[in-house]
Amino acid sequence: MFKVPDHQVAGHRASNGVIGPLIDDSGNFYKPLQNDERGSKEVAFYKNFALNSEIPDQIRKFFPIYHGTQLIEASDGSGLHPHLVLEDIVSSRPNPSIADIKIGSRTWYLEASEDYISKCLKKDRETTSLPLGFRISGLQIYGSKESGVWKPDKKYLKNFTADDVRLVLRKFVSSNSLEDSGKEPDCSFASTVYGGSTGILAQLLELKAWFEEQTIYHFYSSSVLIVYEKESILKGMSSGATVKLVDFAHVIEGNGVIDHNFLGGLCSLIKFISEILTYVPNNTYKAFPKKP
Amino acid sequence: MFKVPDHQVAGHRASNGVIGPLIDDSGNFYKPLQNDERGSKEVAFYKNFALNSEIPDQIRKFFPIYHGTQLIEASDGSGLHPHLVLEDIVSSRPNPSIADIKIGSRTWYLEASEDYISKCLKKDRETTSLPLGFRISGLQIYGSKESGVWKPDKKYLKNFTADDVRLVLRKFVSSNSLEDSGKEPDCSFASTVYGGSTGILAQLLELKAWFEEQTIYHFYSSSVLIVYEKESILKGMSSGATVKLVDFAHVIEGNGVIDHNFLGGLCSLIKFISEILTYVPNNTYKAFPKKP
Repeated sequence: MFKVPDHQVAGHRASNGVIGPLIDDSGNFYKPLQNDERGSKEVAFYKNFALNSEIPDQIRKFFPIYHGTQLIEASDGSGLHPHLVLEDIVSSRPNPSIADIKIGSRTWYLEASEDYISKCLKKDRETTSLPLGFRISGLQIYGSKESGVWKPDKKYLKNFTADDVRLVLRKFVSSNSLEDSGKEPDCSFASTVYGGSTGILAQLLELKAWFEEQTIYHFYSSSVLIVYEKESILKGMSSGATVKLVDFAHVIEGNGVIDHNFLGGLCSLIKFISEILTYVPNNTYKAFPKKP
Repeated sequence: MFKVPDHQVAGHRASNGVIGPLIDDSGNFYKPLQNDERGSKEVAFYKNFALNSEIPDQIRKFFPIYHGTQLIEASDGSGLHPHLVLEDIVSSRPNPSIADIKIGSRTWYLEASEDYISKCLKKDRETTSLPLGFRISGLQIYGSKESGVWKPDKKYLKNFTADDVRLVLRKFVSSNSLEDSGKEPDCSFASTVYGGSTGILAQLLELKAWFEEQTIYHFYSSSVLIVYEKESILKGMSSGATVKLVDFAHVIEGNGVIDHNFLGGLCSLIKFISEILTYVPNNTYKAFPKKP
């Protein structure tokens, strides 16, 4: 009944002796509750969010649907363990391309322990979080039936520079992304996936408008997941371009202040995506041609 | 010819043995160059900004006009010292109310020394910079000819909480701001100073739109100065509401990335100001009535 999801790109993956998320055939995603307070904090967030009447209806679609918690057999065989039961966003798609983008130049918050703060601050400084306001923490790019899927490991992503991020966000929407030809990514799916009234950029801008207003939550160490289906586009169907927020173990109360840390990082990501849409190829490879 | 400005609210003030800025009668503000690299960095910024053709014309008004550098007698009597010659924004106004608001939850940048980073991080954590994305680092509120001016000292401002910031931004535009009556600030100048098509909020939004696009500079430890003239309003004249960016000793190159740290803080300040404009007084004092 339960199985290990095929398309998980970040977080602990279930394997021998390691507890990880599970899925079922009904479109549910079972995320094991972390034993420390992170588990209970994430449950508290989902409960609060589900009942909060101040969340605009059009914003709810950016969050996984929450179906409560459930005791199920843990993936590591250690017995019954409480799991969050969530909407399965990606695992049910046949060949999704997925990027897990941790938003915010700061993944820690004042109320956390000094140990946690130093650990996070170190990671934020070593990755693109600090310079860019976000970091790519998980990635899976589907190429084609022949070339398969490119799923770089965490260590590779950790060492990304700003230029790597630019390149990979272009590869993400390219038909030649898995070729090792040294060619520039063609970005042939950019206008379909990133652009348009239902594309990734439009969704991120909708989310941004909410973050300019909302003072209920501050999201630390949460991710924006961007997902689409290359095969669907090739068949002339919808790209299935979707933006979802995930990972709420470090959400704290906003207390009447906007989440300027998340908002700043989100605006930075929006700028990266919008520059891909306005990118004009050139003889010399210049990712960001200056305006005249 | 040179004199110590009356209305300086932040930074080192010229006094016996302390070097500080000077003004003249022609509307110039002389800011002594700091001896370390901060001085040369600030000059480099002003020079680059003046010549940079990518700065939109309507954005230049948010920056003090730069007239070069000049060797003049230092205010501490120590002899000739190089000074930045800038437009005198506030000193020439008769009775300005001024807030110096340091923008950004982070006042340090990766390239700085470890010592500087720890010092800044500590200050950011101890003030409202981290929770709010900005801190009020200088303040002068003009009351009336009778009540005079309220100019709290730095130590007082340093201990501000989020609620203090909310209150003082309301006092800033109130006719009863200097009364110690325990009354709520009346915000009677809010719509004139913060609101309207030429008010502070409109100017901040114009600045925000630029920060969503510009990837030329990252402004660390820079301030937004907001200024207006209470007496002018009382005489039925323009409020003179003005927004200026100041303090560029820690501006670094943007390298194609937006200044998400400044933008986030600016959005937070915008939210604080806009909530004062939509504030509806109530029986019970609630600074931020929740939307129904």
